[in-house]
Amino acid sequence: MPNSFGHLFRITTWGESHGGSVGVIIDGCPPNLPLDETDIQPELDRRKPGQSHITTPRKESDTAKIYSGTFQGKTLGTPICIMVMNEDARSQDYQEMASKFRPSHADYCYQKKFGIRNWQGGGRSSARETIGRVAAGAIAKKLLRLYYGVEILACVSQVHHICAPVDPEKMTFEQIESTPIRCPNPEIAQDMIEHIREIRSQGDSVGGIITCIAKGVPCGWGEPVFDKLEADLAKAMMSLPAARGFEVGTGFDAIRYTGSQHNDVYRNDNGKIITPTNRSGGIQGGISNGMPILFRVAFKPTATIMMEQETIDLEGHNTTLKGRGRHDPCVLPRAVPIVEAMTALTLIDHALRQKTNLPSAPL
Amino acid sequence: MPNSFGHLFRITTWGESHGGSVGVIIDGCPPNLPLDETDIQPELDRRKPGQSHITTPRKESDTAKIYSGTFQGKTLGTPICIMVMNEDARSQDYQEMASKFRPSHADYCYQKKFGIRNWQGGGRSSARETIGRVAAGAIAKKLLRLYYGVEILACVSQVHHICAPVDPEKMTFEQIESTPIRCPNPEIAQDMIEHIREIRSQGDSVGGIITCIAKGVPCGWGEPVFDKLEADLAKAMMSLPAARGFEVGTGFDAIRYTGSQHNDVYRNDNGKIITPTNRSGGIQGGISNGMPILFRVAFKPTATIMMEQETIDLEGHNTTLKGRGRHDPCVLPRAVPIVEAMTALTLIDHALRQKTNLPSAPL
Amino acid sequence: MPNSFGHLFRITTWGESHGGSVGVIIDGCPPNLPLDETDIQPELDRRKPGQSHITTPRKESDTAKIYSGTFQGKTLGTPICIMVMNEDARSQDYQEMASKFRPSHADYCYQKKFGIRNWQGGGRSSARETIGRVAAGAIAKKLLRLYYGVEILACVSQVHHICAPVDPEKMTFEQIESTPIRCPNPEIAQDMIEHIREIRSQGDSVGGIITCIAKGVPCGWGEPVFDKLEADLAKAMMSLPAARGFEVGTGFDAIRYTGSQHNDVYRNDNGKIITPTNRSGGIQGGISNGMPILFRVAFKPTATIMMEQETIDLEGHNTTLKGRGRHDPCVLPRAVPIVEAMTALTLIDHALRQKTNLPSAPL
Amino acid sequence: MPNSFGHLFRITTWGESHGGSVGVIIDGCPPNLPLDETDIQPELDRRKPGQSHITTPRKESDTAKIYSGTFQGKTLGTPICIMVMNEDARSQDYQEMASKFRPSHADYCYQKKFGIRNWQGGGRSSARETIGRVAAGAIAKKLLRLYYGVEILACVSQVHHICAPVDPEKMTFEQIESTPIRCPNPEIAQDMIEHIREIRSQGDSVGGIITCIAKGVPCGWGEPVFDKLEADLAKAMMSLPAARGFEVGTGFDAIRYTGSQHNDVYRNDNGKIITPTNRSGGIQGGISNGMPILFRVAFKPTATIMMEQETIDLEGHNTTLKGRGRHDPCVLPRAVPIVEAMTALTLIDHALRQKTNLPSAPL
Repeated sequence: MPNSFGHLFRITTWGESHGGSVGVIIDGCPPNLPLDETDIQPELDRRKPGQSHITTPRKESDTAKIYSGTFQGKTLGTPICIMVMNEDARSQDYQEMASKFRPSHADYCYQKKFGIRNWQGGGRSSARETIGRVAAGAIAKKLLRLYYGVEILACVSQVHHICAPVDPEKMTFEQIESTPIRCPNPEIAQDMIEHIREIRSQGDSVGGIITCIAKGVPCGWGEPVFDKLEADLAKAMMSLPAARGFEVGTGFDAIRYTGSQHNDVYRNDNGKIITPTNRSGGIQGGISNGMPILFRVAFKPTATIMMEQETIDLEGHNTTLKGRGRHDPCVLPRAVPIVEAMTALTLIDHALRQKTNLPSAPL
Repeated sequence: MPNSFGHLFRITTWGESHGGSVGVIIDGCPPNLPLDETDIQPELDRRKPGQSHITTPRKESDTAKIYSGTFQGKTLGTPICIMVMNEDARSQDYQEMASKFRPSHADYCYQKKFGIRNWQGGGRSSARETIGRVAAGAIAKKLLRLYYGVEILACVSQVHHICAPVDPEKMTFEQIESTPIRCPNPEIAQDMIEHIREIRSQGDSVGGIITCIAKGVPCGWGEPVFDKLEADLAKAMMSLPAARGFEVGTGFDAIRYTGSQHNDVYRNDNGKIITPTNRSGGIQGGISNGMPILFRVAFKPTATIMMEQETIDLEGHNTTLKGRGRHDPCVLPRAVPIVEAMTALTLIDHALRQKTNLPSAPL
Repeated sequence: MPNSFGHLFRITTWGESHGGSVGVIIDGCPPNLPLDETDIQPELDRRKPGQSHITTPRKESDTAKIYSGTFQGKTLGTPICIMVMNEDARSQDYQEMASKFRPSHADYCYQKKFGIRNWQGGGRSSARETIGRVAAGAIAKKLLRLYYGVEILACVSQVHHICAPVDPEKMTFEQIESTPIRCPNPEIAQDMIEHIREIRSQGDSVGGIITCIAKGVPCGWGEPVFDKLEADLAKAMMSLPAARGFEVGTGFDAIRYTGSQHNDVYRNDNGKIITPTNRSGGIQGGISNGMPILFRVAFKPTATIMMEQETIDLEGHNTTLKGRGRHDPCVLPRAVPIVEAMTALTLIDHALRQKTNLPSAPL
Repeated sequence: MPNSFGHLFRITTWGESHGGSVGVIIDGCPPNLPLDETDIQPELDRRKPGQSHITTPRKESDTAKIYSGTFQGKTLGTPICIMVMNEDARSQDYQEMASKFRPSHADYCYQKKFGIRNWQGGGRSSARETIGRVAAGAIAKKLLRLYYGVEILACVSQVHHICAPVDPEKMTFEQIESTPIRCPNPEIAQDMIEHIREIRSQGDSVGGIITCIAKGVPCGWGEPVFDKLEADLAKAMMSLPAARGFEVGTGFDAIRYTGSQHNDVYRNDNGKIITPTNRSGGIQGGISNGMPILFRVAFKPTATIMMEQETIDLEGHNTTLKGRGRHDPCVLPRAVPIVEAMTALTLIDHALRQKTNLPSAPL
């Protein structure tokens, strides 16, 4: 179903931007995992609006509460319900959108598909929907860390034309979180921040690239044919608002190589099987090979801008619209924890699926 | 499940490269569609090996037979079984692969994941698996053409460093099929072919980019949140052997624009709602907007090359391996019908899903 | 996933008996259906505890609130979240159950399966879980009534040895609701009520049979082979707490007939195709045939009784346990709206699936 | 999808009674299971027509061939394709059914649902479809036996009014297979056989009951809420042609007891946790409790009889039809291996699901 993700660790999110609440149900979380709200809130805080001067000023505490699935501080193996109430919902900012469609936004398509839409703040297509993903992702991250030793890190590696030379295997969480743009290179981070401020002052917006790494994934996660690990990661990332492109390993750059230049040879390195290069991004034939998983996601500039643009109204008449409301001039910094969450959700699902593949010993 | 794709038009493929057969079950094809083998064979012929001097010389007729699901030339609404027997399977070429892993190939990961693999010709990870996809895709294409007026075209737009300036909206099936490389620009096609020959003579391989367009898709296909149309297309494409990257509309190039430069404004053009530009690639908020769907897929150079490379054996010892067997020096030309098939399968599934979304009139 | 039901109208429930809340997400409800809490509360009131002197005295208002998926009184086509807070949770009644397993109850199996359980009031295995089913079922019922003219009625036709001769096609909602036992025959209803009081006074419990009818289902709902309408109804009913048996049409009684006695012949009755008899219960080959859907569900006596019984404790030692807490001496009257809800959820799912089967006209 | 069953051990069947072939794809079979056709054929032989004088005389060798998913005598973890060609298809027997609907058969519903049907021998609704189930079930049985020590046995316990007092825990495979009716009581078996012959000579048919036991199932299989073990077994059984009722443990008989009479108390019996009685049929709260799984399935008399009956034709006119073709006067004996197969498929799926529920030890 369209609002669910995953097979064995399955999440279902709900909620409109200006409805009563947003949240998530997690079905399939293994029992006996220590869990309370303090595992979830820090990730939501990385995602929440108003966290810095380069994000939307909408004020939401985004406080998560667990309504089911835990008992005495541990998971029960039953569905975990996590909900966040909507607070600072200024519907009046959106009155004009009731009858006019924002260019390059989902408004028009929702109206045509459903014959109805909640036009307040994007409704279901708002990035507030990702709160449920991030909450569930926090649990997935904890499972991956505790049971598999897997660590996931994402960072902003490019904003508009400003590109940061990041080394995913060496960057740290602290470096990434040390600047509001979440780029581990402090000088370039400063350039990015200043550029975003400048762009915002013009009422305009910019996009960029997020680079992500998952370290510690063992060989064997991912399924042949359709549920390849890179295919599920691609779907996870391309389901994010504003995502326009996905590439794993060398990605589009792979076409510059010949096969002999591109192949990752196997080598026994003191008992550990490695590939000295990692152009495959840790995945071959859809299955993790034990090297770090590496991929990149391109995000377009935010569609909602504070400039007047051509558009049509509900009756199909040509008109114009100038953006109002509170919006991010660049979605990248807040998208970092979302990319990490979707990565964690994809990986934990494949981790659980792999458990079913292993042959038991005959009696 | 890993070998199935789609929700309402669901295919399940089976078969190893050198096993008894490869094939597909299609569950969910609507009844009363005129269908026999002549609808399927032409697409398989575009995919089959040995079709030109720049593909693998393996000789397979790839003759499809329908075993169920039709009656008196029409579909019944029951599962359609289509099977192709394997013929020219030279297992002896692969004897060395029984104990050594080909670099950047799925061999090692299958062995680690399953504890067993069919090492003859890639087994399940072989591109022969895509026969089932192409056969099912032929039916999806027919449904899309007959019931929705949708046409899908893919072409090779880049091979290694040779880039063809293709205009997806104007290129024709005849142009694409007029050269064995399936690039609609005849001069550049010739350059690509010569380059592939040269690369093959060195025992090496190259990758490239396939550009795809779907024309005639109405507004409203695609689901909010996780099953966005671009997310499902990304998964479909990234599940193809050798695919490394996917982008929709402007894709990675979107980051060069500001929002005001990138947005596609809506306009009523004599009663038809269009966007004069199509940087969104026909999809907004995960839902088709009525403009042509546009995307690109990057393929890496074929992993199997006729050169000696480092690798390890089953026991984990360092060794070397020189490729044998019959392989494509460049997968792109044969991947064109496969990309089209996966596009058709993704679109028909969303077309059927959209039927369930529409409100009936109350009694 | 274990906590979801349905394919196109999919519900996911959450919540433990004594956790924070119980609720349901509905994914796949068509847009533009008029909906608010007043559509849901009456069904929950039929299910809630304390509604009569023959049900558990636990006091819960079971007030439903919609948190998403509607806008200005209509459904959006996005997930509908409905939640009920737990109020009268007396955990202290269950302290003994923390270390002892109630006979014929889920406690022991949950403990062995998950290694943990919420032992307060049954936790996830409590019938409180069905609140989510009934809330979602209320929406399914409304869709079936408004868009398809389908009416669903269930009643108690047997309690212990007291059997009521009910005619499902003639009974009315008012007759059923006129007694707290929900048996449409007032005299026998009174016998049932007195018998339940007597059984309760002994600290014991009884079971019985619920008979259900769905009128107005058109021919064509249900899918061949595995998703037969009777198979999905059987799963729906056998997923209810305490359900032990399911039969459609003549059911187990069918074995008393020969084929010539049992077959339902077709007849054109003034332009309407009917079967003068309905031993098939309105379903043939898994697909509705246009006659009323008829089935029966057997429920065992409530497992929790106020008498001392043998059992084991957490360490596996033999011990005894006497039930405490507040329980229904007979689940039947409160199960009536639950059976109706599961019937509605099964039917609406197949109604939506049938929409995808119908061939569109070619362009 | 309608033609698939199971989540982690998922089968998809195809084929019409008089089409090219019938078969099954198994997706999710663990790797390294020794498997070839000799594991499958014996089960198909128990199901095949013409095996005795009380079954249909249609002559089909029903020879199974494995087309994929195995290598050197072991499963690969990839999809297993098994196919049986249709041989003795006498379409001419069915010419009259092209325009007339057999009473109590699926013909009419298929025609209304799909607007088309293969009227030769029941098409997709024929019991030939169950060949795929039995082939897949043979693999499931082998997995259950080898990896879990689970044994499944079904028998005919009633035919029409002739009831056999069977003790499921004591009956043996040899007893059951010693008579063509598959009733372990030889005297009553003889009565049943003679009764079926008599009924057949009248051109009529009879139904009956199959009793099934699964011994050795550990505590913990089955999922809370919707995917309860008894719910999935009910769906599995009620998806069989002619099945009309399902009951687990005491089933409908449960209503004769009070709670204190019906409850299965737990007892530590020399270190093994048992319930001295097994009225629950080995399942509590949807989860196996370690006792034998016990259930019964009611089958109606075969709908196709050799007597003239009222019916309608394609145009809806009243007419009459006398059965032709080759049919079983009683489906029970051939249904025994089918019931076992569906039981095995349900159990292995839950066995694999349970593996994902178990908490790993933290690193």
